[in-house]
Amino acid sequence: MNTIGHTFKVTLFGSSHGDAVGCVLDGVPPGLIIDIQAVQREVDLRRPADGIGTPRREADVVEIVSGVRDGRASGTPITIFIRNENRDSDKYKRFKDVPRPGHADMTQVSKYGQCVDIRGGGQFSGRMTAPLVAAGAIARMLLSDLGIEIAAYTTSIGKVVDVKEHSIQELIAQAKKNDVRAANEEFAESMRREILEACEDNDSVGGVVSCICDGVPVGLGEPFFDTVEGELSKIMFAIPAVKGVEFGAGFRAASMRGSDHNDPFVVVDGRLRTAKNDAGGVLGGISNGMPITFRVAFKPTASIAKEQRSVDRTTMEETDIKIEGRHDPCIVPRAVIVVEAATALVLADLVVRGGFVD
Amino acid sequence: MNTIGHTFKVTLFGSSHGDAVGCVLDGVPPGLIIDIQAVQREVDLRRPADGIGTPRREADVVEIVSGVRDGRASGTPITIFIRNENRDSDKYKRFKDVPRPGHADMTQVSKYGQCVDIRGGGQFSGRMTAPLVAAGAIARMLLSDLGIEIAAYTTSIGKVVDVKEHSIQELIAQAKKNDVRAANEEFAESMRREILEACEDNDSVGGVVSCICDGVPVGLGEPFFDTVEGELSKIMFAIPAVKGVEFGAGFRAASMRGSDHNDPFVVVDGRLRTAKNDAGGVLGGISNGMPITFRVAFKPTASIAKEQRSVDRTTMEETDIKIEGRHDPCIVPRAVIVVEAATALVLADLVVRGGFVD
Amino acid sequence: MNTIGHTFKVTLFGSSHGDAVGCVLDGVPPGLIIDIQAVQREVDLRRPADGIGTPRREADVVEIVSGVRDGRASGTPITIFIRNENRDSDKYKRFKDVPRPGHADMTQVSKYGQCVDIRGGGQFSGRMTAPLVAAGAIARMLLSDLGIEIAAYTTSIGKVVDVKEHSIQELIAQAKKNDVRAANEEFAESMRREILEACEDNDSVGGVVSCICDGVPVGLGEPFFDTVEGELSKIMFAIPAVKGVEFGAGFRAASMRGSDHNDPFVVVDGRLRTAKNDAGGVLGGISNGMPITFRVAFKPTASIAKEQRSVDRTTMEETDIKIEGRHDPCIVPRAVIVVEAATALVLADLVVRGGFVD
Amino acid sequence: MNTIGHTFKVTLFGSSHGDAVGCVLDGVPPGLIIDIQAVQREVDLRRPADGIGTPRREADVVEIVSGVRDGRASGTPITIFIRNENRDSDKYKRFKDVPRPGHADMTQVSKYGQCVDIRGGGQFSGRMTAPLVAAGAIARMLLSDLGIEIAAYTTSIGKVVDVKEHSIQELIAQAKKNDVRAANEEFAESMRREILEACEDNDSVGGVVSCICDGVPVGLGEPFFDTVEGELSKIMFAIPAVKGVEFGAGFRAASMRGSDHNDPFVVVDGRLRTAKNDAGGVLGGISNGMPITFRVAFKPTASIAKEQRSVDRTTMEETDIKIEGRHDPCIVPRAVIVVEAATALVLADLVVRGGFVD
Repeated sequence: MNTIGHTFKVTLFGSSHGDAVGCVLDGVPPGLIIDIQAVQREVDLRRPADGIGTPRREADVVEIVSGVRDGRASGTPITIFIRNENRDSDKYKRFKDVPRPGHADMTQVSKYGQCVDIRGGGQFSGRMTAPLVAAGAIARMLLSDLGIEIAAYTTSIGKVVDVKEHSIQELIAQAKKNDVRAANEEFAESMRREILEACEDNDSVGGVVSCICDGVPVGLGEPFFDTVEGELSKIMFAIPAVKGVEFGAGFRAASMRGSDHNDPFVVVDGRLRTAKNDAGGVLGGISNGMPITFRVAFKPTASIAKEQRSVDRTTMEETDIKIEGRHDPCIVPRAVIVVEAATALVLADLVVRGGFVD
Repeated sequence: MNTIGHTFKVTLFGSSHGDAVGCVLDGVPPGLIIDIQAVQREVDLRRPADGIGTPRREADVVEIVSGVRDGRASGTPITIFIRNENRDSDKYKRFKDVPRPGHADMTQVSKYGQCVDIRGGGQFSGRMTAPLVAAGAIARMLLSDLGIEIAAYTTSIGKVVDVKEHSIQELIAQAKKNDVRAANEEFAESMRREILEACEDNDSVGGVVSCICDGVPVGLGEPFFDTVEGELSKIMFAIPAVKGVEFGAGFRAASMRGSDHNDPFVVVDGRLRTAKNDAGGVLGGISNGMPITFRVAFKPTASIAKEQRSVDRTTMEETDIKIEGRHDPCIVPRAVIVVEAATALVLADLVVRGGFVD
Repeated sequence: MNTIGHTFKVTLFGSSHGDAVGCVLDGVPPGLIIDIQAVQREVDLRRPADGIGTPRREADVVEIVSGVRDGRASGTPITIFIRNENRDSDKYKRFKDVPRPGHADMTQVSKYGQCVDIRGGGQFSGRMTAPLVAAGAIARMLLSDLGIEIAAYTTSIGKVVDVKEHSIQELIAQAKKNDVRAANEEFAESMRREILEACEDNDSVGGVVSCICDGVPVGLGEPFFDTVEGELSKIMFAIPAVKGVEFGAGFRAASMRGSDHNDPFVVVDGRLRTAKNDAGGVLGGISNGMPITFRVAFKPTASIAKEQRSVDRTTMEETDIKIEGRHDPCIVPRAVIVVEAATALVLADLVVRGGFVD
Repeated sequence: MNTIGHTFKVTLFGSSHGDAVGCVLDGVPPGLIIDIQAVQREVDLRRPADGIGTPRREADVVEIVSGVRDGRASGTPITIFIRNENRDSDKYKRFKDVPRPGHADMTQVSKYGQCVDIRGGGQFSGRMTAPLVAAGAIARMLLSDLGIEIAAYTTSIGKVVDVKEHSIQELIAQAKKNDVRAANEEFAESMRREILEACEDNDSVGGVVSCICDGVPVGLGEPFFDTVEGELSKIMFAIPAVKGVEFGAGFRAASMRGSDHNDPFVVVDGRLRTAKNDAGGVLGGISNGMPITFRVAFKPTASIAKEQRSVDRTTMEETDIKIEGRHDPCIVPRAVIVVEAATALVLADLVVRGGFVD
């Protein structure tokens, strides 16, 4: 349903074209310093960029309506509110009858019936990730106290692929400075061109987000089922448009030999580490102290201006559909902060469950 | 922890070198016909094959000790027991001090302390998948009544990759007939060679399992968080050695344009379908009535006979380690039935939650 | 924590002296007609009465900020907001050091530390029951469609005890008409006097609320643990000031013989019923189709104007404490609607879990 | 369903007349010393006494089949098995058609259908409390390390009521020495007579169990919903035959004034305590460091040899029923250890959730 987490839990509410979106965070340790400006800054990073993003602009002002007093978590649930302002809903009615290819219109109407609110994707909208980012910002404050840092960046857009390794320091310094969230301005430029080309063709394009978590202690994860990878992948697939998740060497591991893939143990500065990190920081579902690394594949935005084939469900006849409205030609740049936030929520829950917080 | 599922739930217990492994299944609809021979047959499919599998052989006799009466589920939890017989545990002691690369020894000891039982991987052992397969067999009986079929098969081993599309009928007919679980004997032969070569090199090799679920009704999945992809990926990452999961076009979608990736809606036999299935049967986290398709990447078996580098934790000095014992040079053929079982558990929970069962 | 329910779930947020209190309801069947006026009416029934209630008056305006569209549940979580207006918080600071007898000041500060917000009871305040009542009103709409009715009333206040049996029709017609929520005006008058006497003595008084649920189908409850009684009692003890819960004959059953207590089965209008209802409508944790009946004991309001003994935690010396401020001399009349709402939430969850809703 | 607990969790399985009953305990801290003899001793205390208990005698041998190695918890789930031996099941068939008054036959068949196993009460049998006691014994080992002690005893049987206060030391020393589990031999004698009289009349009798938990730290309980009282009451109502639960002054509090009921704070040995304990050790749902005290009402055993009225569901005609078989004329003496075990399970979960264990 709309809640995730075992002890540090977030419940999302609202919909794209309702009054507001928001969330309730339960299990935040009392006394945690909550920097509302920092929450707002993270939410702002999710907003579309000029030129390569949708022209729909929401102010996305974060209101904390409960759970914080005098700048600290009080121990009661933290409720966050983000009002919807810029709604343009009329055009969605038709999609209940003629579902948009690649969209959830068809599955939503089939599952929930005609009362479902599909405007802007309703509950399935990318807009639901705004409160997710706000919640993630608070999770990050908890993690930051433990020395855990998270950095995601755009690794590929369409045919442009960044195969270089980047340090987390480089990513933290650079990736939020360009509007594509690429590791540096050079990649950003090529990726921006790829997005604009798709846009000019009335089309959209997909991409990959990579994520690195540094400073993670040994011992996060609660096997058999609540593994680090399992918990992270579950929340990643809740982000609209995600089609794949892989850790460390990922799918590449399938073609490797064990002697290549196994990461030898070594001693670095008196601590047990591995010489490389094809495991992606996880062994047996538990963090091993190396950076947790994973990659998330995003499909191209489903809404495109090009004409597409669909079916009118009232007559069951095939028909053409053209989606007007305002859409991102590529969701990936905006998804980077969402991946970071979702990661923070999972790690915060695991550190609380694992007893790493006082 | 060791329980998964919301309404149709499974709890695993036991460890590789304890007395037994087993599980408790709660939420099985009373009256469901339970075919114990069929459960045993599925568990037998998980056993290692001659030549390409580990020489450790367990009888793996399935005992149902509660919850079934006169061949039907009674509504109380079903408890399944599989005794461990063929144990050879002495050699594991050393691995608490000198962790095996690629294994969970290091993370287990760090997390649970010296009392943890790492023999054979303990709770993290592939052996825990035996009761998972038994539980999945029961989930399958529930799904079968609804016309849902699941077929997984080996798509790649090392460098040998099967890129052909196979119908689910072909897979059901062929994949269990060869010991590699390939789509046909031709692929099986090449893949078998790939495994034997790795074995001769005292090494191991990884691979990919693909899975198709047919007959799935529209409307499975409980967004925002409990999506079809999220629930399936979470359980897949609980299977030892899994490093990646992708649905439909998966990572390939990241390089596509929207006009290529979106599946156009069409009418087939009076029903709303899509002309192709790059979505992998899921839109907005909810099944759309097309086959659910996904691929799971397995790393090469961590245990190899080759000498590897590790660290003695008592002295914090680097050292060499050689793993003797009995291991599968490639886990993929045995993982095929495990992927099917895990899939069945998730789908059974989603059909019960979605109200598709009476 | 702050969430209750398995499939129909409510999460409470806010605190007595924060900006707002509210809740998120997940699992409301899409299409359910939501009558916002009816929600407001139920919340209004929780407000204090003139003369016998606290002079603190909140407008308690219910805002539904998500999940309802065109008067129907849309399938996404329903979020309800009730702003706090009438706050008078200064006097609470002292209670962190000198805890009020019978209050949660001492346990809150010990558990959550100095950041906890104890103003007005904070998260432990009776004020948290306002959103509970709003959520219960929605649960009631679901139950009402199934013919389930819930009526609670004040059975005793201090020494005044109503031992008569009342039909649910009588209770529905009468109990909300008097400010004590007694079964009739005669009892209301005696109980009102009991409250006013306590008030004149600068004291408070306790009482008992009885509850009847009619029209309950056979088969609610999910043993072994999620029994009708277990689920109802758990939520009742979340209502501040509750000290006891009993079903049917309750504690009286302890002194009975089996031949007196067992309810004989009879046939009434062709249906299987029991000749009397000492079981309180539950056998083996499952509803048996007879009315579910239970009684809830409330302690006297902890806040009294009389001087009391306490301890100053900074010096660990005993001291006197006088609680000024505005308090109900008896919480029972206002608790009646809260008991009904909490009951509705539990029954709604059980009917959804039991498959009684479409 | 059949699982209870948030972090320290127990899942029950089996049924009265199946092969075995048992449980799986998840979340037991690795390294905890598990004394199997102590588990067996607790389970033995649940067995019926000569003269006043049922003649059905089960050996109730406890087998731990997973999760314990070298006398310590290994961190994996602990699975406990108790085989059923002494079954005499034929007589139960008739009760599917002609339900026994006061029993769950009618609700079980209505809810689960004809496949349900009602022999001996099936899943609703008092026999399910045998694995509950075994699990509780392990919870107790965890609590004992923290200095928490639990003692329950029989406070009333029928008309014989023990209104004296007893110290926990007295109860620990005396209550297990007599077969009624009374506070001393004098009460035991009167209560035993009350049971035998009921038995001679072919009847049964109810009673009350009181429970005291000493050494409980301040701060257990997770409001709003997961309060100490809420969690304890929920599990108590899962024990067959329980009809009421009250804490501290309980129902008596309803007739009290606030000035009488509020427990004044005092300093004892430098610690904050209350001068008396009408709160039963809980304020605002959180333990306050005083002993947690509560009372549990048990109805008389439903199975009596006296003729009773019932209905034949196949013909829907009223009929007489006589229950032969072997039954306890009073369940209360055997319930005492069950109340202790259930209490231990709840407190163990709360201490783990509250971070009181390493």
